[in-house]
Amino acid sequence: MKSIGVYIPETKESNFDLLNRFDITEEFITRKIGVHSRAIKNKTDNTSDLCVKAFYNLKSKTDIDIEKINLVCVVTQNPDQKIPHTAAIVHQKLGLTKNCMTFDISQGCAGFPHGISIVSSLMSNLSIQDALLFTCDPYSKIINQNDKNTALLFGDAATVTFISNNREQSGYCLQGTTFGTVPGSNSCLTCEDKLQMNGRDVVSNALREVPENINSLLRSSGLKISDIDLFVLHQASRVMVESLRDLLILDEETAPYEIMNLGNTISSSIPIVLSKHVDQLTKDNILISGFGVGFSYASSLLKLIK
Amino acid sequence: MKSIGVYIPETKESNFDLLNRFDITEEFITRKIGVHSRAIKNKTDNTSDLCVKAFYNLKSKTDIDIEKINLVCVVTQNPDQKIPHTAAIVHQKLGLTKNCMTFDISQGCAGFPHGISIVSSLMSNLSIQDALLFTCDPYSKIINQNDKNTALLFGDAATVTFISNNREQSGYCLQGTTFGTVPGSNSCLTCEDKLQMNGRDVVSNALREVPENINSLLRSSGLKISDIDLFVLHQASRVMVESLRDLLILDEETAPYEIMNLGNTISSSIPIVLSKHVDQLTKDNILISGFGVGFSYASSLLKLIK
Repeated sequence: MKSIGVYIPETKESNFDLLNRFDITEEFITRKIGVHSRAIKNKTDNTSDLCVKAFYNLKSKTDIDIEKINLVCVVTQNPDQKIPHTAAIVHQKLGLTKNCMTFDISQGCAGFPHGISIVSSLMSNLSIQDALLFTCDPYSKIINQNDKNTALLFGDAATVTFISNNREQSGYCLQGTTFGTVPGSNSCLTCEDKLQMNGRDVVSNALREVPENINSLLRSSGLKISDIDLFVLHQASRVMVESLRDLLILDEETAPYEIMNLGNTISSSIPIVLSKHVDQLTKDNILISGFGVGFSYASSLLKLIK
Repeated sequence: MKSIGVYIPETKESNFDLLNRFDITEEFITRKIGVHSRAIKNKTDNTSDLCVKAFYNLKSKTDIDIEKINLVCVVTQNPDQKIPHTAAIVHQKLGLTKNCMTFDISQGCAGFPHGISIVSSLMSNLSIQDALLFTCDPYSKIINQNDKNTALLFGDAATVTFISNNREQSGYCLQGTTFGTVPGSNSCLTCEDKLQMNGRDVVSNALREVPENINSLLRSSGLKISDIDLFVLHQASRVMVESLRDLLILDEETAPYEIMNLGNTISSSIPIVLSKHVDQLTKDNILISGFGVGFSYASSLLKLIK
């Protein structure tokens, strides 16, 4: 993992403008949800367009030879359309070469640790040199604006992670992933046409499964919590990140919360927080943990290789 | 790869009943398309239901301990709904345990070699013991019944491939995959609401790329065409399979065509042909090749391990 490009739409919608519509208090917004404003994409931008904008950000800070990209994977549950996969559209828009595998992964808020595990495993098994892993789930397409449970929570964004087997550059390397799917819990987040969320189920599943999943990854890696320099927990909401921090006995700096002016960006929330650390190369061990749609979850250990 | 379960709907629609509607000849059906009748799912069955039916077929011929399944992947571009991924719904319907990764892959007619590569790579990298790889793309949901290009071609089906690292049983093992995506060709098959196919583009891409892709896999494996006991080419249409057979100089038995009373079942077409050979264990080297939506393609070499 060499660098992460991020695209966050400039347009922001303030939750404080919606106090009357939903009959809620400022404290509910600041203390519980913890999202003051949400990033909202241009109406004309589709998922592939947001991915391409994230790639421009990546290109502005990293030297990438697009001739060498042999794999494009897009993690999304809101593709441009059913057919083709969005990865094929991104492949075309970026002008990539023929020698490139393209596919999408449908996974929700645990999409990034799933994606990084799938792409890294494929790269090592099929001897793929360079890959681009995109995440993009523009929930503004599927939110019911009158639903308090979701309309105040989710923001739009896209990210792209450049993964290369080139050992000459420093970067983070995947060391292991633990994962799971809670039996009988797939209906906690659903979308036929508009998103429906059973917030109570999501919270109870997350608080029960995520700490156990993280501890299981630590045990299998022979590490303790104090060996991890940074925990990037899925940025679901303020109360969720704070509750997980309390359960794992972590401080704010080790497990940051950073979506006050962004919103929960689903599979993009982890790589957005991760992006500056991947560039800075100051943390030795980073543990990421995603959870949500399914109800499924995955945690991965990333180690700095200099 | 230990065994493959298949579900083919009992209801068949005859193409000979449509001669007048489309102003076509019997010869066009028998010689060119090569699909006499197509399997059509029950209206009430969704993608996950077809997957579950394929699993019942698998279970009827293989001993499977569902407690040990640690990965469920569904290859589909027609999921039950946007959210959650169909794999989470199948996970729930089969009563699988918590220790299970679930995700979908969006890929078209090359979905099976992509899926088998992704699942095998993940299994070896994350030490996963047993996995289920489903394919299901019920195109009857998205076909325009008045479109001659597609209404006579596609059939519904589902398959499930049981993959296990248990070395005590015989089975086929993935030896390598070659792949690609044709630049600028993602619009040859599209679906916003209904399927649109540019048949000429599909044919020209396939005939140009697939033989080269197969030859590249053979070269990298150190094998010749005559070393391969069975070629399972994506069953796109009679003329497509026959043209590829001619280009590769293969006979009918080595590269069979078997969808006369089924139709092109997209990502399920390869595992349906493969299923009886995986049970029989008589072929040492099998080469599979899928191509379509994207326009993307992938070929994999499978070796019998006794």
